[in-house]
Amino acid sequence: MSGRLYGLGVGPGDPELLTIKAHRILQMVPVIAYPAPGDGKSLVRTIADPHIPEGKAEIIIRTPMVPGQFPAHDVYDHFAGVIGGHLDAGNDVAVLCEGDPLFYGSFMYLLERLAGSYPTEVVPGVSSLTACAAVAGLPLVSRNQCLIVVPAPLNEETLAVRIEAAEAAVIIKVGRHLSKVCRVLERLGRARAARYVARATMADAVSCPLADVAADTAPYFSMILVPPREGIP
Amino acid sequence: MSGRLYGLGVGPGDPELLTIKAHRILQMVPVIAYPAPGDGKSLVRTIADPHIPEGKAEIIIRTPMVPGQFPAHDVYDHFAGVIGGHLDAGNDVAVLCEGDPLFYGSFMYLLERLAGSYPTEVVPGVSSLTACAAVAGLPLVSRNQCLIVVPAPLNEETLAVRIEAAEAAVIIKVGRHLSKVCRVLERLGRARAARYVARATMADAVSCPLADVAADTAPYFSMILVPPREGIP
Repeated sequence: MSGRLYGLGVGPGDPELLTIKAHRILQMVPVIAYPAPGDGKSLVRTIADPHIPEGKAEIIIRTPMVPGQFPAHDVYDHFAGVIGGHLDAGNDVAVLCEGDPLFYGSFMYLLERLAGSYPTEVVPGVSSLTACAAVAGLPLVSRNQCLIVVPAPLNEETLAVRIEAAEAAVIIKVGRHLSKVCRVLERLGRARAARYVARATMADAVSCPLADVAADTAPYFSMILVPPREGIP
Repeated sequence: MSGRLYGLGVGPGDPELLTIKAHRILQMVPVIAYPAPGDGKSLVRTIADPHIPEGKAEIIIRTPMVPGQFPAHDVYDHFAGVIGGHLDAGNDVAVLCEGDPLFYGSFMYLLERLAGSYPTEVVPGVSSLTACAAVAGLPLVSRNQCLIVVPAPLNEETLAVRIEAAEAAVIIKVGRHLSKVCRVLERLGRARAARYVARATMADAVSCPLADVAADTAPYFSMILVPPREGIP
């Protein structure tokens, strides 16, 4: 009997925002796997740390990050093989995922390689989207309003069109694209109402009006909330 | 000293998808409040039930629902007053919210009435958005793709424009608008790839291709996931 693959959302940063289900599964599985940068610490491992008992086998999915590029698919080919080896041996494996596993998460690349061959379960987590709104105390969207999620690396013209395509927008992956996003929001007349949130629910979280941000770049884990022009009905 | 107001996301339906933080706060507060229909049971109270110790004071926010209409704002005026009374007496109050408190949640109407007068904390929860993706095992969106959330009550033309405004769409509040949404997706050539999910993570959850849904109407708690035309890069 092969083991079971879990995609485990561990939430946006505060270890207390893990679900009870994710906590239970972490007690039970013999093997955990998690992404980490080319060198240095894994953020998701740090978030989940208080919930991980000693003595687990750990697979570190080292994913070298080059600005402006996405990780090569051969990284996922390789680690799908490593995880598959544990599953073949009958061991359950939990892949830790920042926020939610299927919302801009790299778990989807393991899922597409492994779900056809092994029993698989995705455990949803609190996503950074709603965590940012919670930290800002700002309702995102209501009733029949639409919300669009827009990655900041897009070019200025595309950003402008996408932001205006719904009543409310959340701009993600802000990082080194901060000045560009500010320019676009200024042009659209939406900079004044926008709110900046970094590292939502982490100990060093920041939440302030976008106009108060002095820096040219932001952490990768930052977002800009653009509320509806007409407010919340 | 006044009490503290909590907006508590309890997740999409499975009681195990409460966060550890929401669970802790439920043990601690003397008063809970939650929405319920004009008559009948409160869904959110049922979700949170295994985590609520005996002996809490309970405020039932009865909100008569008329199809096609939103609850009148005087309901929130009234219950903000009731909750304010408990806070004035020094008691913490947790308002239970399906999914996440600020993502299409009615908590925002209490927040805008009370946050200026009382210490307030919003605890984000797992939203139905990612819960549906998890149940379907379907990645929503990746890398520099945009995602739009579209309420089904919008008219056909608006639905079509909004759905096409991003690579991926999630259509919420499907209910009695199911046939209309199917017509729109058919016209856009996106019906075949669309996936239907109802009551995600609840005991009676349903997940299937949209084409397999025979009924004309769906439960209020149902969504349609429309993946990117080009798939996940």
